[in-house]
Amino acid sequence: MTTRTLILLALIFLAGILIERNTYNADATTTPDRMRAREAGLSPGVMPTGSLNAITDVEGVKVGHTTIIKGENVRTGVTAVLPHGGNLFAEKVPAAVFIGNGFGKFIGTTQIKELGEIETPVLLTSTLAVPKVGDFLISHMLALKGNEDVRSINPVVAETNDAFLNDIRGRHFTQEDVSNAINSAKHGAVDEGSVGAGTGTVAFGFKGGIGTSSRKIPENLGGYTVGVLVQSNFGGVLTIDGAPVGEELGRYYMKGALEGSLDTGREDLNELADGSIIIVVATDAPLSARNLERLAARTMMGLARTGASGSNGSGDYAIAFSTADSVRRTGARGEKSIELLGNDSMSPLFLAVIEATEEAIYNSLFMASSVSGNGRTVEALPIDRTVEILKKYKRVSSER
Amino acid sequence: MTTRTLILLALIFLAGILIERNTYNADATTTPDRMRAREAGLSPGVMPTGSLNAITDVEGVKVGHTTIIKGENVRTGVTAVLPHGGNLFAEKVPAAVFIGNGFGKFIGTTQIKELGEIETPVLLTSTLAVPKVGDFLISHMLALKGNEDVRSINPVVAETNDAFLNDIRGRHFTQEDVSNAINSAKHGAVDEGSVGAGTGTVAFGFKGGIGTSSRKIPENLGGYTVGVLVQSNFGGVLTIDGAPVGEELGRYYMKGALEGSLDTGREDLNELADGSIIIVVATDAPLSARNLERLAARTMMGLARTGASGSNGSGDYAIAFSTADSVRRTGARGEKSIELLGNDSMSPLFLAVIEATEEAIYNSLFMASSVSGNGRTVEALPIDRTVEILKKYKRVSSER
Amino acid sequence: MTTRTLILLALIFLAGILIERNTYNADATTTPDRMRAREAGLSPGVMPTGSLNAITDVEGVKVGHTTIIKGENVRTGVTAVLPHGGNLFAEKVPAAVFIGNGFGKFIGTTQIKELGEIETPVLLTSTLAVPKVGDFLISHMLALKGNEDVRSINPVVAETNDAFLNDIRGRHFTQEDVSNAINSAKHGAVDEGSVGAGTGTVAFGFKGGIGTSSRKIPENLGGYTVGVLVQSNFGGVLTIDGAPVGEELGRYYMKGALEGSLDTGREDLNELADGSIIIVVATDAPLSARNLERLAARTMMGLARTGASGSNGSGDYAIAFSTADSVRRTGARGEKSIELLGNDSMSPLFLAVIEATEEAIYNSLFMASSVSGNGRTVEALPIDRTVEILKKYKRVSSER
Amino acid sequence: MTTRTLILLALIFLAGILIERNTYNADATTTPDRMRAREAGLSPGVMPTGSLNAITDVEGVKVGHTTIIKGENVRTGVTAVLPHGGNLFAEKVPAAVFIGNGFGKFIGTTQIKELGEIETPVLLTSTLAVPKVGDFLISHMLALKGNEDVRSINPVVAETNDAFLNDIRGRHFTQEDVSNAINSAKHGAVDEGSVGAGTGTVAFGFKGGIGTSSRKIPENLGGYTVGVLVQSNFGGVLTIDGAPVGEELGRYYMKGALEGSLDTGREDLNELADGSIIIVVATDAPLSARNLERLAARTMMGLARTGASGSNGSGDYAIAFSTADSVRRTGARGEKSIELLGNDSMSPLFLAVIEATEEAIYNSLFMASSVSGNGRTVEALPIDRTVEILKKYKRVSSER
Repeated sequence: MTTRTLILLALIFLAGILIERNTYNADATTTPDRMRAREAGLSPGVMPTGSLNAITDVEGVKVGHTTIIKGENVRTGVTAVLPHGGNLFAEKVPAAVFIGNGFGKFIGTTQIKELGEIETPVLLTSTLAVPKVGDFLISHMLALKGNEDVRSINPVVAETNDAFLNDIRGRHFTQEDVSNAINSAKHGAVDEGSVGAGTGTVAFGFKGGIGTSSRKIPENLGGYTVGVLVQSNFGGVLTIDGAPVGEELGRYYMKGALEGSLDTGREDLNELADGSIIIVVATDAPLSARNLERLAARTMMGLARTGASGSNGSGDYAIAFSTADSVRRTGARGEKSIELLGNDSMSPLFLAVIEATEEAIYNSLFMASSVSGNGRTVEALPIDRTVEILKKYKRVSSER
Repeated sequence: MTTRTLILLALIFLAGILIERNTYNADATTTPDRMRAREAGLSPGVMPTGSLNAITDVEGVKVGHTTIIKGENVRTGVTAVLPHGGNLFAEKVPAAVFIGNGFGKFIGTTQIKELGEIETPVLLTSTLAVPKVGDFLISHMLALKGNEDVRSINPVVAETNDAFLNDIRGRHFTQEDVSNAINSAKHGAVDEGSVGAGTGTVAFGFKGGIGTSSRKIPENLGGYTVGVLVQSNFGGVLTIDGAPVGEELGRYYMKGALEGSLDTGREDLNELADGSIIIVVATDAPLSARNLERLAARTMMGLARTGASGSNGSGDYAIAFSTADSVRRTGARGEKSIELLGNDSMSPLFLAVIEATEEAIYNSLFMASSVSGNGRTVEALPIDRTVEILKKYKRVSSER
Repeated sequence: MTTRTLILLALIFLAGILIERNTYNADATTTPDRMRAREAGLSPGVMPTGSLNAITDVEGVKVGHTTIIKGENVRTGVTAVLPHGGNLFAEKVPAAVFIGNGFGKFIGTTQIKELGEIETPVLLTSTLAVPKVGDFLISHMLALKGNEDVRSINPVVAETNDAFLNDIRGRHFTQEDVSNAINSAKHGAVDEGSVGAGTGTVAFGFKGGIGTSSRKIPENLGGYTVGVLVQSNFGGVLTIDGAPVGEELGRYYMKGALEGSLDTGREDLNELADGSIIIVVATDAPLSARNLERLAARTMMGLARTGASGSNGSGDYAIAFSTADSVRRTGARGEKSIELLGNDSMSPLFLAVIEATEEAIYNSLFMASSVSGNGRTVEALPIDRTVEILKKYKRVSSER
Repeated sequence: MTTRTLILLALIFLAGILIERNTYNADATTTPDRMRAREAGLSPGVMPTGSLNAITDVEGVKVGHTTIIKGENVRTGVTAVLPHGGNLFAEKVPAAVFIGNGFGKFIGTTQIKELGEIETPVLLTSTLAVPKVGDFLISHMLALKGNEDVRSINPVVAETNDAFLNDIRGRHFTQEDVSNAINSAKHGAVDEGSVGAGTGTVAFGFKGGIGTSSRKIPENLGGYTVGVLVQSNFGGVLTIDGAPVGEELGRYYMKGALEGSLDTGREDLNELADGSIIIVVATDAPLSARNLERLAARTMMGLARTGASGSNGSGDYAIAFSTADSVRRTGARGEKSIELLGNDSMSPLFLAVIEATEEAIYNSLFMASSVSGNGRTVEALPIDRTVEILKKYKRVSSER
């Protein structure tokens, strides 16, 4: 290391200290009146959840968040989903991406499709920060023990656009933000709502964010678990477990156009329809990349059940991976013995991922608290009124 | 023509006379107690329908059916959707196919994707009959005036599997059956239910079939029409406009497995989940093949709202075409002036196709009458009980 | 069976007898002066061939042809490639299709992509006959022992357009033609040139047809075999092992346009560039469908080395399958143990398939004899002059 | 701006000054004995080149390089290709990506596919630097006049792996490097060889780099121009205009394995086969994104003609765009009148792109000078010996 480099590093360190950084952890941002959808009385679908009703019900999966809130206009973050706790570059997992609408900046997709695997954690973040976060992810991976000779890494970073509440052009992210999201990832319950990559997102005109859910396949169909985590930032005509909540609340895409109250008919797109969703799917079923892609494709059916309108501006992506040991790809990826679930056994997993996606989205709405930024405030979904609507439509027992 | 050929033709003609053929027209099979979903009080979605609430609301589109019912075990047919009344080979229309689940026998897809167009009507039929019907479609096209020198045709034929009620292995189709479906195609109201390619299909364990619906885009967003026609033969957990009809009726995929009443957990797949759906989308918006593919992709979101489980055995396809004159491809397909709708104007069309697909599926169920075949009977959706459920869940006014 | 059906069957049988059918077997059409490319002194590529230098070097693979030559204008046929000698529906093999240019009528592709497998032999034939041949293939499969209850089959039929020499509109095919191609399929040397599906095809303005070749991977890289069979009917600027044969012979696509001798610049497309190629790849390497698709994709690189111009009208498809026992999919396709070759081991197979495709195309040209039909004659590649050119460019030893 | 931010910015500026940066411009690295393929006597293909035989023959296209050479181990750079000189975000151009082998880190692909357009220049760089360069590209775009309110950008950055000669883990790139490549982009002759993103690349075991070429379509076929620029870093069995140069030089992939001189058979992959190529295609033909994708697909046929082996580790991508005014997408991308070239007119463009890709690769090899880095030296293709071989095989006149 040259003297000049040393001076440079010292200066960068000094600069780091000076940066104002108010990173709140997830718990701090979860206001007491929020609750998960099931706590509010919902139970969408017919299949049972895992014990946590979270992506972490899939053994080995860990989730971490860095929530970045600074001053008046920085409302963003990073969420990391880890298929396992080891060095993912050394122990890759089979994976696939399904693209419902490719108007997004998800990086890493072509290699995932070609090789059928991922070799880094899956990071979620803010649209314009994807490359920056990707670079930090590379730094993180290069620094891992055992990766000293690695000269090629396929960072997996997806995003939704939090520009409504966040100074998105500023890309307020540091190496530490990214490394912390990965290093703090943990098993167990997952923080949801306005945390991590969901800090500044908006869904159906309400505050969106991170949500998670899971489903357990009956033992005689394999006993596998399917977990889903979403970063919700999209819209349409909000439907909760079949109830027309968006219509009842008088807030949905196309309302203005239909009532003739819009000049161009496009004013409501940004707030009520566009925005994107990223859906991360984990399963312990031993699946090929091909069947993981099919699993990922079904997430769009769960998305649809929430009233998503699939608008032009909504980049809707799903990424699915298998944690099963029999399909893990280690150093010597030559000819090896693996166990694979056949096409004929996929149907229960497909229903599971539809239901878990639907519920993960509800959880993102129910758990997200109101957030202000950029001089705007996006209110949380009003749980009381929503539950009243759900009672009216018999989706929540009137005895609650 | 040689003598031998003449004799052959005479013999074939004689054979034709001897074949028992009881082809009922569509009206004959529509029992009086069936009704469309809106007649039962439903109005799914937020957008207005076209005047017929049918794919034929898109100007120029014609639909024809041949219903084939013979003896005890032949319950099948052909449905033809024509983008316009002219010679489609001479005046091709831009088109695209989206494949939600490719476990199906849809022919013509690779050329549609490569060239972005179709050059024959879209035919729907029974799984094992696709090639046979495709061959008859070629004969029909070759015989059209102006096609005397045509040496390449890309027949478009899709299917669902009607083996539960129909002697599918017999492929009971003639040239006349196919030509009639095309030649009898007409504007105006469309026969729905157990007709044409929907004669022998099953959806959610009830009688499925042909259904159609449409949506009209507000004038300030373009004023276009989107029409959908489906051949429903799939399943899952039936949901009607958000109401859990399948659960209330005690009939849905996964019920047996969850209750532990199945040995392998797969017995209910065939009847309650597998089977396929074909979704045909027409619009008068001037769309490129790329945006037609995006439109077709959104049909899966309408499908999802009906409770489809996306099972392994359900081949789910959508084909979309534009009837707009400005994008029609005539003989001299060189450099030409066309009008194209941009990406930014697609969102209303996307919501429209979601809603029209959802309602078309409901119409297929509401209009289909019970059918017996192969020693089995598939009952029609019980409209009375269904309406009671819909009232309970406030999807149909209790005053009806 | 009813009396009417019996009468009908009798009439059809009678009709069959009356049909004039002059089916020559393959050997009859191979004129003595044709030879394989290696017999002419060529040895394209750097890898060794299998012992037969044919797709049948892959153990278990069988090839059969039906050559249909009738009267003045029927010059067509069927070629069948069987991954193994058993019931393919009961013992499916993993497979994938790669589409270089989708302007073609290949049926079966969507299911192959979705499920990653084939369940019938691969049939090659004439463009407009694809559905008809597909229907006969279904009949053949339904009649196989063990398939009595089969109600869904995905027939795999590909094509190139032989309309230049053949009465393509007539679709002169019978059930017997198709069944014979399958039933007569055999191991060992493969008939090449103007046989089977190659009877009426044209390549680079010369007579094309069926060609085959293989490559053997070195033992320390796995020792696998890759075999290729092509139906050549395309064009461009013929290059043989790097030598500009098309230019030397004064016959290549774009020549007329460049010399200004064409009115519209499109006259030469039909004869010298358009037309299509189907490439069938077999290997005994235990590959997933994903890696089979990658293998299939590389065939286009072998195609390119022959001077193919990838013209708009040339539907260029490859289908690849694995015969390895460890990846075969039998009745109980649930969770099972399989051996899969990893991505890292694919490179030698990729080079092998490039070289085998290139040489298979040369073999199709060297082995095809001149054919007349439709009042036209397409001359075989002039081997003497070609070898002179190859000597000039040092691709064949001048001592030969 | 807060005081802390000001201090931070000052420190960053100071740090910038201290960084050792020896950026040589392209001309300095072009040694006098290098020449373009045509200067050496080659003229691959049958179609005429544009006047510069470069991608800049397509009117409006500009190319810029930043070559980064520092100390002993930094040998890398950035190359920028601009479809036009304006603000690309405000005036997008239709575009498409074709992926021959997706083992690469190309970012921006999903949005290009979905929307059929690009909105930034196309940047080429080093594998691990893609996200970092992407972030700098975002900064560059955000700072452009007119982009003050832009909150979403799809940066297009592709790469090949220069780790053999370059300290790839260091990602030695600055904002200035990226901005300079874009801002210095110019019309006219293009610097080739070991410059920009080609500074540290290797092809067929020789020094690779940047190469370009073009073809002009005859006037009666449209008179369009197709230009290609490549970043070559791949391998196989080098073939130059059909001559077996790799074999004659005793240097090609699979040689060691075939001779039994390798232990695992994989030692030569890294140096002689893996590595990737990025192919950028520009045309002034008014093409839809769909036909641009077809054009991009044909580049793989040009790649194949150079002896590429399509190895597992070679990420082979092509991106094509149209500069035609009639297809440019400006702010109001609603319904508008555009001119589109039809499918039937594509064939000459397809041959053009095949030839231009082939020759661009030769130019990258002929123009690249030897480079040392990481303690290794990669020699330039020996032009004298190569020309001797080309003479032997009659690809270059023996009178030169």
